[in-house]
Amino acid sequence: MAGNSFGKLFNLTTFGESHGVAIGGVIDGCPSGVTIDFKAIQNEMDRRKPGQSAIVTQRKEPDEVKFLSGIFEGVTTGTSIGFIIENTNQKSQDYSHIKDSYRPSHADYVYDKKYKHRDYRGGGRSSARETACRVVAGAIAKQILKGVEIYAYTASVGDISINKSYKELDLSNIEHNAIRCPDTAVAEQMIQKIKAIRKEGDTIGGVITCVIKNVPIGIGDPVFDRLHANLGKAMLSINAVKGFEYGSGFEGTKMKGSAHNDLFNEDGSTKTNYSGGIQGGISNGMDIYFNVAFKPVATIMQTQQTINTDGNSVDINGKGRHDPCVVPRAVPIVEAMAAIVLADAFLINKIYN
Amino acid sequence: MAGNSFGKLFNLTTFGESHGVAIGGVIDGCPSGVTIDFKAIQNEMDRRKPGQSAIVTQRKEPDEVKFLSGIFEGVTTGTSIGFIIENTNQKSQDYSHIKDSYRPSHADYVYDKKYKHRDYRGGGRSSARETACRVVAGAIAKQILKGVEIYAYTASVGDISINKSYKELDLSNIEHNAIRCPDTAVAEQMIQKIKAIRKEGDTIGGVITCVIKNVPIGIGDPVFDRLHANLGKAMLSINAVKGFEYGSGFEGTKMKGSAHNDLFNEDGSTKTNYSGGIQGGISNGMDIYFNVAFKPVATIMQTQQTINTDGNSVDINGKGRHDPCVVPRAVPIVEAMAAIVLADAFLINKIYN
Amino acid sequence: MAGNSFGKLFNLTTFGESHGVAIGGVIDGCPSGVTIDFKAIQNEMDRRKPGQSAIVTQRKEPDEVKFLSGIFEGVTTGTSIGFIIENTNQKSQDYSHIKDSYRPSHADYVYDKKYKHRDYRGGGRSSARETACRVVAGAIAKQILKGVEIYAYTASVGDISINKSYKELDLSNIEHNAIRCPDTAVAEQMIQKIKAIRKEGDTIGGVITCVIKNVPIGIGDPVFDRLHANLGKAMLSINAVKGFEYGSGFEGTKMKGSAHNDLFNEDGSTKTNYSGGIQGGISNGMDIYFNVAFKPVATIMQTQQTINTDGNSVDINGKGRHDPCVVPRAVPIVEAMAAIVLADAFLINKIYN
Amino acid sequence: MAGNSFGKLFNLTTFGESHGVAIGGVIDGCPSGVTIDFKAIQNEMDRRKPGQSAIVTQRKEPDEVKFLSGIFEGVTTGTSIGFIIENTNQKSQDYSHIKDSYRPSHADYVYDKKYKHRDYRGGGRSSARETACRVVAGAIAKQILKGVEIYAYTASVGDISINKSYKELDLSNIEHNAIRCPDTAVAEQMIQKIKAIRKEGDTIGGVITCVIKNVPIGIGDPVFDRLHANLGKAMLSINAVKGFEYGSGFEGTKMKGSAHNDLFNEDGSTKTNYSGGIQGGISNGMDIYFNVAFKPVATIMQTQQTINTDGNSVDINGKGRHDPCVVPRAVPIVEAMAAIVLADAFLINKIYN
Repeated sequence: MAGNSFGKLFNLTTFGESHGVAIGGVIDGCPSGVTIDFKAIQNEMDRRKPGQSAIVTQRKEPDEVKFLSGIFEGVTTGTSIGFIIENTNQKSQDYSHIKDSYRPSHADYVYDKKYKHRDYRGGGRSSARETACRVVAGAIAKQILKGVEIYAYTASVGDISINKSYKELDLSNIEHNAIRCPDTAVAEQMIQKIKAIRKEGDTIGGVITCVIKNVPIGIGDPVFDRLHANLGKAMLSINAVKGFEYGSGFEGTKMKGSAHNDLFNEDGSTKTNYSGGIQGGISNGMDIYFNVAFKPVATIMQTQQTINTDGNSVDINGKGRHDPCVVPRAVPIVEAMAAIVLADAFLINKIYN
Repeated sequence: MAGNSFGKLFNLTTFGESHGVAIGGVIDGCPSGVTIDFKAIQNEMDRRKPGQSAIVTQRKEPDEVKFLSGIFEGVTTGTSIGFIIENTNQKSQDYSHIKDSYRPSHADYVYDKKYKHRDYRGGGRSSARETACRVVAGAIAKQILKGVEIYAYTASVGDISINKSYKELDLSNIEHNAIRCPDTAVAEQMIQKIKAIRKEGDTIGGVITCVIKNVPIGIGDPVFDRLHANLGKAMLSINAVKGFEYGSGFEGTKMKGSAHNDLFNEDGSTKTNYSGGIQGGISNGMDIYFNVAFKPVATIMQTQQTINTDGNSVDINGKGRHDPCVVPRAVPIVEAMAAIVLADAFLINKIYN
Repeated sequence: MAGNSFGKLFNLTTFGESHGVAIGGVIDGCPSGVTIDFKAIQNEMDRRKPGQSAIVTQRKEPDEVKFLSGIFEGVTTGTSIGFIIENTNQKSQDYSHIKDSYRPSHADYVYDKKYKHRDYRGGGRSSARETACRVVAGAIAKQILKGVEIYAYTASVGDISINKSYKELDLSNIEHNAIRCPDTAVAEQMIQKIKAIRKEGDTIGGVITCVIKNVPIGIGDPVFDRLHANLGKAMLSINAVKGFEYGSGFEGTKMKGSAHNDLFNEDGSTKTNYSGGIQGGISNGMDIYFNVAFKPVATIMQTQQTINTDGNSVDINGKGRHDPCVVPRAVPIVEAMAAIVLADAFLINKIYN
Repeated sequence: MAGNSFGKLFNLTTFGESHGVAIGGVIDGCPSGVTIDFKAIQNEMDRRKPGQSAIVTQRKEPDEVKFLSGIFEGVTTGTSIGFIIENTNQKSQDYSHIKDSYRPSHADYVYDKKYKHRDYRGGGRSSARETACRVVAGAIAKQILKGVEIYAYTASVGDISINKSYKELDLSNIEHNAIRCPDTAVAEQMIQKIKAIRKEGDTIGGVITCVIKNVPIGIGDPVFDRLHANLGKAMLSINAVKGFEYGSGFEGTKMKGSAHNDLFNEDGSTKTNYSGGIQGGISNGMDIYFNVAFKPVATIMQTQQTINTDGNSVDINGKGRHDPCVVPRAVPIVEAMAAIVLADAFLINKIYN
């Protein structure tokens, strides 16, 4: 397979270009008998969609999911779930400027070299529009993960950071502001930062933290398919992601073993949780938590020097409506990919019980 | 598959417990016609093996690979390559203390809960001994990646760090010291640090940087199988790894797009390389580089409180000979996994040419 | 994955129920740069569609394929190809009689037992309507198999059989009659047979032979993925198929080795071809040929005794418009699955050259 | 993967050439907690091994399995099970005559063309010696299929055939004669036939029937992974197999639907079983039964004309000790592959319960 499938038993295969007729996907391996909450799915879509707030791109796309199969009378049948999301905001003329030029730090150049023939409109397949399909599958995955709670939130924007553990935060605040940061005061700073950056025609990166509660002991596989390795791959497969760390992460490398080891309580829980809820690739019942690094969006509203398809130096200008910071819209994508990884791991684990 | 296989076309499946008869694996998908350099393989094994220097575990294991198939008269035949490494250092009596107790921050507890029945001797399957098989496959992968150069090195031990880009370092120095750090002065500090830590009966973490040169443009797939996502999964599947970042990584989240974008030269190379040699999941011909975070080794030579299989609080003491810092021996493992990912991506890319 | 995907590198994932909104699929792994002949695709669809002749079901469905991605300006881009076929002939009321009863020799009963909740309309996912998606993918596969010729034809209907080797037949006659039998005289007998069977409200089985010419030497893999094993699985996955044999097949079991062995000519071709163009799972350059057995259609226009979902005995009557013999419409499906298997094997083989 | 792996969750990867150091494999996905009956495994090996009776090859190979991992204190741990079988009967000098010549209807020629470099000794990887590893995995698969009974037997040798349904036979007789035919009178004819054939220096084919009892309802997946499609692929992947049919098979194509349909009893069982225990790819609780066609062994003790690697015509003579008929030794291989397919399907089905 050429990269468009994810998951072993709960499997998502996606298709679609930014400015084609539609994007969509197939979810194979969803168990039968799941009563689908369609509103919950659309709610996740709305968290990701453009135009939702003042600090994201002002493009308008309803991003309505149309299910084509696998759900009968509102309940999954165990057969593959096909779905599409129509591209309502197609304006091919907007993209004439990128037909013959390569946008810096975009995939235009490598797609052209690898495939020889590319759909240049809006980035085609390399556009983050593709992640809408992940949110659909993630929303369904959440519905089969009964009891599991997944919270992603913005932990930093540029150099503005929460600097608190998730345990010190009220995660019910996440959806109360446009940046999806549970620390209201820091959220306001982040929003101001993004507004300022946008005025400059520039963009900024950020970090999303994700916390997963109530995962039972024993989920995940050893050796190559460790739960955190699959989570890491899932996150690194999201557009603009540059890094992943879980539990103590990069900071943990500075600690001594005597401080880092998570000592057991008699009930099998641990007194600390530097392990991030996973030991040897398998969940230990403690909270799973990890950070995901997003680079600044590559499309800026400034003139940049670049090259055209003939290898000549040309100027390129950002056009259209773009995100000054990808992080607020990426929060539901991180949750969706986490849910897909977990749903897959839960199903695999059923084999051994 | 239950986690013991890695790679789509260049595929490694491994088996073996730390104190069983032997560990080993099968490499499927290695092209025919590759003249195998057995000395080069053993050289990689020697870089990983215990007892190689004063700062690693003093256990003695020759770690000799015995190939059983797939190579005829020194040349691969295109059929599956089976190999074993005998466990010469089996001392089951050493491990009676961990039969009934769970070592903190080890996988003993979760294995017991998941599988009900575990080989407790030396950690069984969860032991890092398993990584020896990865080094075998990685050494063969390197031999099919003609022209590609892979350099991993120790970038930090605890809070002692090189703090230089790989470009400022002489990578030919890596094998000149026991810690595998190309900055000789910093290497000496790291070695002293590890010796001090060991005297305390404690352990310490560290960071390994890996640089890959001469990867042609177009390697890797889009969407879910981005080259960096596969590299990330590969690294996160190594024992003790807590984080992965490539290119600008977590630091890059603080940058503006105008500074972070890699502008093109007319030959298609870029003036900067915050992208880390990969755009949209596909190699762009620039150096690929990434960091891998390793936690401090969980086995310490101190008395720790833990619980036994009955859930009662007991004391546990580290026994045997263990690494105070996993990083020097992990350098060849990082290279091996990078080589396996690349060999797989190279083969997949052949389809499109 | 739960059974809805086929192929390793040239991969098809399908979805859709007989009477849902639409059926469709995703083709992942199609190389870029293939100029798509859309008419050729629709032509294959027309060979499979209902209502095409007097001896097949008289339902009318246009079966028009709508491509959603992966093809830009008529040429493949190397990204996943999504497509849908709308179900225009939905009449849910027709199926009330099978909501609560199990049709004999259909999958209703086992779907109900396995999944608990099924889309009973028209057989849902177990309907042969699903094969339309295979024909789409097969038509594209044919377009990347330049030079390879695939001919399937009806070899027998009930006890009326051609009784000639494919070498004695003019394969250009296949499409000249409704039953797709290259022997015009036998074709007429088959057609009369089917008409008579239909008058009885009954159905009849048959055998399709498939011949593949111009496959180069070396396609296919050894051991578990032998080319004929993959062809066999592909054929056995088609609705109503009960058997597969290639080369000398079941008759060959009666031969002596001295007669069965295919002696070489000096150019590497063989004097006979009992091997059916495949040795050790790998193509040898000779014609590949095989037979596929189709059972009589289970839906008959007669009253049958059956049970309802409560386990009580009830009568059931065939309703709607059904095929008295599946074979004429299955000919393009056999070709499609053969093309998918070969396209996959061709791509895999590129790795080794 | 290059053809050396089989199974999705219960997965076998094998390696090894006929005259290399050893053959072996890795079983990944075997659940933990299975108490292994090692005698039962060796018993299956003995049913396959050379030299077991007067009508098979008189080579002597003990075929002792050595388990290297995954089993601790006699019980599986859920980790991968590595095993090897040493090749004790290596006589490389025996094979000098096939180094430069291609044996008719063997894989020598296609391996040479595909891989350029082959291990010619005893057929290397294309030797049926590889199937010993399948028997190991099949013997373990049988041990996790509690209650399921798998009986394979010889149904025909050349034109000598039982001509009875399995229901009319006493399957407990299978192991009572060297040909493994439950009809004692026919068995004797078969044995005499094989002895006569061997005297001629010739070989003969045959058919094996396999019956599987006590498979619960609901095993298997729809569409591409139908249970019979996976069984078919498994059988067709065995050396020398030319055909597969299940239930009514090729004969069923001659029947009318009204006769072929399996009417239900009120308990959900069916009055007839032309379906062969599988409907829509999913088991229905009735007996599963199928036939497997084996061609005559290609190595004959007669002089045959062939070509050498330079394309010149040469004579070749069979040397060594070979089977005049593969069928009696293939019976346990058919059972093993059936058990592997079923174990895999049972594990996959656990997801939905």
